[in-house]
Amino acid sequence: MLNAHHDRIRLPQLQARITDAATAAALIHDGMTVGMSGFTRSGEAKEVPLALAARAQKERIKITLMTGASLGNDVDKILTEAGALARRMPFQADPVLRAAINRGEVMYIDHHLSETVELLRTKQIAPIDVAIIEAVAITETGAIIPTTSVGNSASYAILADQVIVEINLSQALELEGLHDVFIPKHRPSREPVPLVAVDQRIGSTAIQIDPDKIAAIVFTHKLDSASPIAQPDEDTAAIARHLIAFFEEEVNAGRLTKQLLPLQAGIGSIANAVMMGFVDSPFEKLTMYSEVLQDCAFDLFDAGKLDFASASSITLSEEKGKDVFSRFAAYKDRLVLRPQEVSNHPEVIRRLGIIAINAALEVDIYGNVNSTHVQGTHMMNGIGGSGDFARNAYLSIFATKSLAKGGDVSRIVPMVTHVDHTEHDVDIIVTEVGLADLRGLAPRERAQVIVNHCVAEPYRSMLKAYIADANQRGGQTPHVLERAFEWHTRYRVHGSMKKIEE
Amino acid sequence: MLNAHHDRIRLPQLQARITDAATAAALIHDGMTVGMSGFTRSGEAKEVPLALAARAQKERIKITLMTGASLGNDVDKILTEAGALARRMPFQADPVLRAAINRGEVMYIDHHLSETVELLRTKQIAPIDVAIIEAVAITETGAIIPTTSVGNSASYAILADQVIVEINLSQALELEGLHDVFIPKHRPSREPVPLVAVDQRIGSTAIQIDPDKIAAIVFTHKLDSASPIAQPDEDTAAIARHLIAFFEEEVNAGRLTKQLLPLQAGIGSIANAVMMGFVDSPFEKLTMYSEVLQDCAFDLFDAGKLDFASASSITLSEEKGKDVFSRFAAYKDRLVLRPQEVSNHPEVIRRLGIIAINAALEVDIYGNVNSTHVQGTHMMNGIGGSGDFARNAYLSIFATKSLAKGGDVSRIVPMVTHVDHTEHDVDIIVTEVGLADLRGLAPRERAQVIVNHCVAEPYRSMLKAYIADANQRGGQTPHVLERAFEWHTRYRVHGSMKKIEE
Repeated sequence: MLNAHHDRIRLPQLQARITDAATAAALIHDGMTVGMSGFTRSGEAKEVPLALAARAQKERIKITLMTGASLGNDVDKILTEAGALARRMPFQADPVLRAAINRGEVMYIDHHLSETVELLRTKQIAPIDVAIIEAVAITETGAIIPTTSVGNSASYAILADQVIVEINLSQALELEGLHDVFIPKHRPSREPVPLVAVDQRIGSTAIQIDPDKIAAIVFTHKLDSASPIAQPDEDTAAIARHLIAFFEEEVNAGRLTKQLLPLQAGIGSIANAVMMGFVDSPFEKLTMYSEVLQDCAFDLFDAGKLDFASASSITLSEEKGKDVFSRFAAYKDRLVLRPQEVSNHPEVIRRLGIIAINAALEVDIYGNVNSTHVQGTHMMNGIGGSGDFARNAYLSIFATKSLAKGGDVSRIVPMVTHVDHTEHDVDIIVTEVGLADLRGLAPRERAQVIVNHCVAEPYRSMLKAYIADANQRGGQTPHVLERAFEWHTRYRVHGSMKKIEE
Repeated sequence: MLNAHHDRIRLPQLQARITDAATAAALIHDGMTVGMSGFTRSGEAKEVPLALAARAQKERIKITLMTGASLGNDVDKILTEAGALARRMPFQADPVLRAAINRGEVMYIDHHLSETVELLRTKQIAPIDVAIIEAVAITETGAIIPTTSVGNSASYAILADQVIVEINLSQALELEGLHDVFIPKHRPSREPVPLVAVDQRIGSTAIQIDPDKIAAIVFTHKLDSASPIAQPDEDTAAIARHLIAFFEEEVNAGRLTKQLLPLQAGIGSIANAVMMGFVDSPFEKLTMYSEVLQDCAFDLFDAGKLDFASASSITLSEEKGKDVFSRFAAYKDRLVLRPQEVSNHPEVIRRLGIIAINAALEVDIYGNVNSTHVQGTHMMNGIGGSGDFARNAYLSIFATKSLAKGGDVSRIVPMVTHVDHTEHDVDIIVTEVGLADLRGLAPRERAQVIVNHCVAEPYRSMLKAYIADANQRGGQTPHVLERAFEWHTRYRVHGSMKKIEE
């Protein structure tokens, strides 16, 4: 190790722990539970998992892998192809891993993202043997300074027997100070999370652990994967317009000010497009209290619309990433990255009064939302933080295009095939057709509003016919059970949810 | 008014507001929203609603009625039969009202019980015109001392234009001091709910409002309705045994102490039986942080097992009620009644680490729970507080007998027809057959554990066959959609979920 990087490893005794990825990966044995940094393709460990995958090609190594959320740099793909994953939690978004999950080869437990470390801390799931944490640097006291995400890194490092640190030399030291690491105490002596404002700092800027637990230090130069954000299209622009108009009405009605309330936006093109809608809006001094900051957050900063953003990670497109990190000082004092337990904490979300905007895979006539399961069976990504936010938000908004597969799939169906968010946790449904304000409505009323405002033909007429038949059967939430999934069956068999005669 | 009851109305200027129920009810007009005390058949207004129903027999009066939860003294029945209810929230448990709801005549919006007042406070649902609050007394400052429940009474009184107080002369003045009224501030300047221990008091003992808002005071002598709690039977005793054995294992594993963590128990015979199981258990110094205290809480006090109980109401059987209220001083310093916003607050539930025990109407092989809808369509009572607790608990337990209708209905089905609690919020399923510990398991594993531990024949074999067929289709959560509700359809048509040939 010619270059000891004293600015990156500031506790001299730890210089001796510098090693290569293969040596570090040798600390991980078959059957172990590994807790790794990484949240929405940001800040995952980039070297040791690959060395582990290489070993798994030659010997039996099957681990339980816990992360913050999804990983970049194909780490999940490579580990899956090497057969190294027995169990995976609490979130993933990789096509190869997803396929293995859906074949039943990898046991996938998707959690509300705020809850994983609670289960670990109370020993209700298997303990972390080894943590692998990407870092900008290790401080004089042996504390770990994360990179572009915090995720579950702090609790994993604290709870693990051994910690491997991957120091990313491509990440600037100026990331130091960006993070705010607060860890709730063990129950029953836990106190309130003291956070009462989006821009408040309640913890430390690094993850403090016993330095003796740091068993290996590896260097990397790999950057985070760029985020593949789709550009707004006509439909997402319409969704954004409907939402902006809705917020204007809320301000006119005196329920919100032009500052609104702190915004959470799920990941993906719809949420990004919706947030971009604020650029040319009358709203100002906006804040975000979210789990991930995408391109839109920095566009809103540049437009002078956004005052402060709190999240657990930053994930940007290639172009935006180059721009933002080349002049990071311009943003740093308006940003904070927190553990996902804090960014997604029910206590804080309820207290601050978040406006939560998440994408739906499928919505039913009563406003139940499926965020995860295609045809009710096949996992896409996972529930992620959407449940943490939707349940506890001041206002819970779900957005989706009304159609998919060239019109052969309606995103609004008689009954969702999988429920991630019950009607109690869904206030607003918005599609390119329009917006359904469901607040204060009973299920039969919700059905009318959703069908009339959010659905285009021919599905609108088909849903009206279903509702009429269901109402004949009666009930608080009328259904014709033997036909509730008829559209899904038709799509599976005939390739379209539309009626055969059409 | 011969007897001015100066001990009951301590602010002299309010003596002039004493009137009869019919005069008080005249303050309520067609189309108004009325917020009323009452939570799990305790502490509801008993005179003015009946006078309102009498008027509604003669003139058009249709109101939105909000309460804490269910009402006693047939108040919901009488109002329904008088045609006085247009809309009802956030909970009910009356057979006559339920039938009207299921016919679509009364619009019923069931809420997570902690959330109703948040929606009111932020003007997201129609504002309260008149509040009707049962009280033990009105203090020197015009503050209202509730009776056997707090529910939403405090926020209703604070937010209403006019308040009618029903002073219940059958309720002893010694109830004063039982209540702890804390109301969170408006956002965005809200601070933490400071509650960090079950026995902590964080508010005032009465509901402070502007006394000028008290428009009428009515007296009543009617008692709360007795709670119709079924005695434990062989099945509920078995459920209790399985749970006690589970808790013993948790203590042996070092995850819990003999004090466990604060217990929440849903209302009804199963939860009552489970709690009674603690009487002859090795656990001690137990605490409850629940929404309602049934007979079992006082049996546990008498058995020396329970140290303190916090809830939003007390609802007792006739015999137990006579006993408890005849010697209330023996219990009072170990009890506190809070607003349901606090008893059910996600922030507090998560912080304290509650063990939540709730009843399920129907459970599916993946651990999704239906608490409310018979055949997915017809409302029983409502989701109540079960969602507040299940989502945020340290441990979320759902209990049900495995069979109903003499064995023609299986409570464990391929897919629940309505989801109140998603698999993420369900840690333990327990039936008289056994207990399924689902912590850390993926859906395919959950199915095996539930079917093997909680289901009796012939349904166990039927579920295994379903799972085998579903696994052929693949997925994270395998299903055969066109057969997912086959059992329910069979029951509707043939009166049994069992296969026809059997």
